[in-house]
Amino acid sequence: MFKKILIANRGEIAVRIIRAAKELGIKTTAVYSTEDKDSMHVKLADEAICIGPAEASKSYLHLFNMAQAIVNSKCDAVHPGYGFLSENPAFVRVCNDLGVTFIGPDAETMERLADKSIVKSILEDNGIPTIPGSRGSIKDEETLIETAEKIGYPVLLKAAWGGGGKGMRVVRSKEELIGAYSAAKMEARASFGKEDIYLEKFIEHPRHIEVQILADEYGNVVHVGERDCTLQRRHQKLLEEAPSVVLKEEIRKNLLSTAVEAARVLNYKNAGTLEFLFDGENFYFIEINTRIQVEHPVTEMAYGVDLIKEQIRIAAKEEISFTQSAVKPKFHVIECRINAEDPVKFYPSPGNITSLFIPGGPGVRVDTAIKCGSNISPFYDSMIAKLIVRGNSREEARLRMLRCLDEFVVEGVKTSIDFFKKLLITEDFINNNYDTNFIDKKILSKY
Amino acid sequence: MFKKILIANRGEIAVRIIRAAKELGIKTTAVYSTEDKDSMHVKLADEAICIGPAEASKSYLHLFNMAQAIVNSKCDAVHPGYGFLSENPAFVRVCNDLGVTFIGPDAETMERLADKSIVKSILEDNGIPTIPGSRGSIKDEETLIETAEKIGYPVLLKAAWGGGGKGMRVVRSKEELIGAYSAAKMEARASFGKEDIYLEKFIEHPRHIEVQILADEYGNVVHVGERDCTLQRRHQKLLEEAPSVVLKEEIRKNLLSTAVEAARVLNYKNAGTLEFLFDGENFYFIEINTRIQVEHPVTEMAYGVDLIKEQIRIAAKEEISFTQSAVKPKFHVIECRINAEDPVKFYPSPGNITSLFIPGGPGVRVDTAIKCGSNISPFYDSMIAKLIVRGNSREEARLRMLRCLDEFVVEGVKTSIDFFKKLLITEDFINNNYDTNFIDKKILSKY
Repeated sequence: MFKKILIANRGEIAVRIIRAAKELGIKTTAVYSTEDKDSMHVKLADEAICIGPAEASKSYLHLFNMAQAIVNSKCDAVHPGYGFLSENPAFVRVCNDLGVTFIGPDAETMERLADKSIVKSILEDNGIPTIPGSRGSIKDEETLIETAEKIGYPVLLKAAWGGGGKGMRVVRSKEELIGAYSAAKMEARASFGKEDIYLEKFIEHPRHIEVQILADEYGNVVHVGERDCTLQRRHQKLLEEAPSVVLKEEIRKNLLSTAVEAARVLNYKNAGTLEFLFDGENFYFIEINTRIQVEHPVTEMAYGVDLIKEQIRIAAKEEISFTQSAVKPKFHVIECRINAEDPVKFYPSPGNITSLFIPGGPGVRVDTAIKCGSNISPFYDSMIAKLIVRGNSREEARLRMLRCLDEFVVEGVKTSIDFFKKLLITEDFINNNYDTNFIDKKILSKY
Repeated sequence: MFKKILIANRGEIAVRIIRAAKELGIKTTAVYSTEDKDSMHVKLADEAICIGPAEASKSYLHLFNMAQAIVNSKCDAVHPGYGFLSENPAFVRVCNDLGVTFIGPDAETMERLADKSIVKSILEDNGIPTIPGSRGSIKDEETLIETAEKIGYPVLLKAAWGGGGKGMRVVRSKEELIGAYSAAKMEARASFGKEDIYLEKFIEHPRHIEVQILADEYGNVVHVGERDCTLQRRHQKLLEEAPSVVLKEEIRKNLLSTAVEAARVLNYKNAGTLEFLFDGENFYFIEINTRIQVEHPVTEMAYGVDLIKEQIRIAAKEEISFTQSAVKPKFHVIECRINAEDPVKFYPSPGNITSLFIPGGPGVRVDTAIKCGSNISPFYDSMIAKLIVRGNSREEARLRMLRCLDEFVVEGVKTSIDFFKKLLITEDFINNNYDTNFIDKKILSKY
């Protein structure tokens, strides 16, 4: 097993990884920007190294500074968390060159799977259902028009190298197509440095359902159930739950075994997530995420596993600590992402936390790096806590979440707590009657 | 179901009950002494009523003030928590007279079961194993000497109306007997107002193992497994776990069904705990507690149930929400009681909490009413938080507890956190090699 892990991240996910490492008896090195010098991840790690100024490009995203910290820490492994360098194959290669283990897939796999259109083609060839669309990126406007006609409107334009909704456009008629294509290309280039765009059938009322996968070096590939992440704002997940209540048992089994099969086909290693859209009858693969995800605690609480520990074990060339037959949901789980932002307009709300009471009691988990007195920096992501609750039923979990939102006190910054209080009492949420556009179209359009 | 519950308690257990009520859609009324006006239980309840000054005898133990609060709140039920009025039959009668439901057993049952020697006799007559001893209280010194000779030394003197180790004496020879008897009587009278003493065989290296029971008005009696509460300081529990790892499967089954049988024989209703001593081969009933216990979260986390909700349901004449066959341990769970006290000398350490970070992440539950800025009053119990963790094995839970103790920051008062850090790394704790005297004799004797 590793002796020391450097955590190439900050905030709650850095704290989360420190926790797993400590429980495995592994020392930890935190890295931090000058802005983060008083952060909890710095205090909780065994040691901490400053890697530059506040701007992420000069610290958390800075390959050379990170490499120097790795060398100075004398660590033997690096956990990238999510975001920042977690999906950067160049960083994986830096780790390899320095002789330390990157906790995640290898650089080649990461690179290969980053091109969504190629992944899609491979899976199609292996009988995994994907959304009908272009094979690979669109080469020119002529192909674009032809493919759209063939598939039938509405269609969706997507950036091949993107994520988070950037470079995405829904097109409902031929007239809009060329304009949307140019706009998507421009956004993709601005956001990801590459303007490759592909096209697919637009699913009208999709649920976003993803499958958590673990795969070790010994050929074991297991799923740890699905997460329903349908509730999004502009393609950013806000609330996730597990298990999904819209899947009939036969479809669920089929989805989970399809995801395992896809992970095998892609020769994936370590923890990964296969994302699907579900239209009420069929599911379609959309993309694979080659990192631990923000919403991983939903799976951990529902299934009683520790995904970060499994990631570390797999990277240390151990086998996954459980078998597929042991994977059974013990609870229904709901997670709300608590952001420091205006609950109506969603502007970030940085500042100093002057008073704090974090919910507790039965069936509640909070992942956070904030304490009373913490400063929420405008330089980073506005997510300040993940509030995760379990129940013996979805309704018990929902009522528990409402109870927790009620008792959560954060003063000094605005938060999304009030937004969730409203969301969780809507009839549509209670009845599970929503799709991925629900928040944008039905909740936020009211403001 | 009830419309409004008044919580006749303070601190973490008041917060715990508010949480359960909120999740059931029931309004809550908190009561508070002037000392507690800024406490979290006051803030989290829907309304709060001041019941007197700081001294418990003038507020939380004051029957008239409590009755007045019950009337003013227009509640339809009262939850007593633990301690204070929770085992006072007169308070149950006050509730009944005011036409509100007391959440717990009825007054007659509470009164009947408060005399430990009578309970013991009833159970003996029904074939439940108890510790060999006097039948009922000792009448005179002659009977005392005779009974002790018959049972054989060492023997234990215990207050019939007591608890918490007061009025208790171990006697190893005839020469010590009369002196110890007088001392125990005096202590019993001072502590409980009644000097009745009974005598039993002293078990040399006992484990303290208790069984959680639920019984509703429809004749359903279920156990929710056992808790091992062997680690005590002067008969005060410090650390509890579930399941107990010292019980072979056959003995466990026998213990659990014996506890259910005992609850039936005693005609017990609502949540209760049957406490046993286990000498490595046999278990002996020692007493029944007619209230929810401090350590109830251990059971909740291990079995995925909500005991406070069950208490409320049972009091509302609903059936227990699960059956015996559904009761299976999902995890190994450990709880540490975090007290505001010197970790070596155990003196209370009241004061103001100036900085606070509460552990979180996977498998962690914290029950507390403190926040940054809270005042720990010298007037009440020094327990400020219960830290409860689960693991898929005892060792995973132990390592997680150590991780949590490490990250728990409480500044402004001394706490028992450091004591637990030392305890959890002793070989004897790791190997489960201890009895109820372990902390007093092996850990504290070193200081």
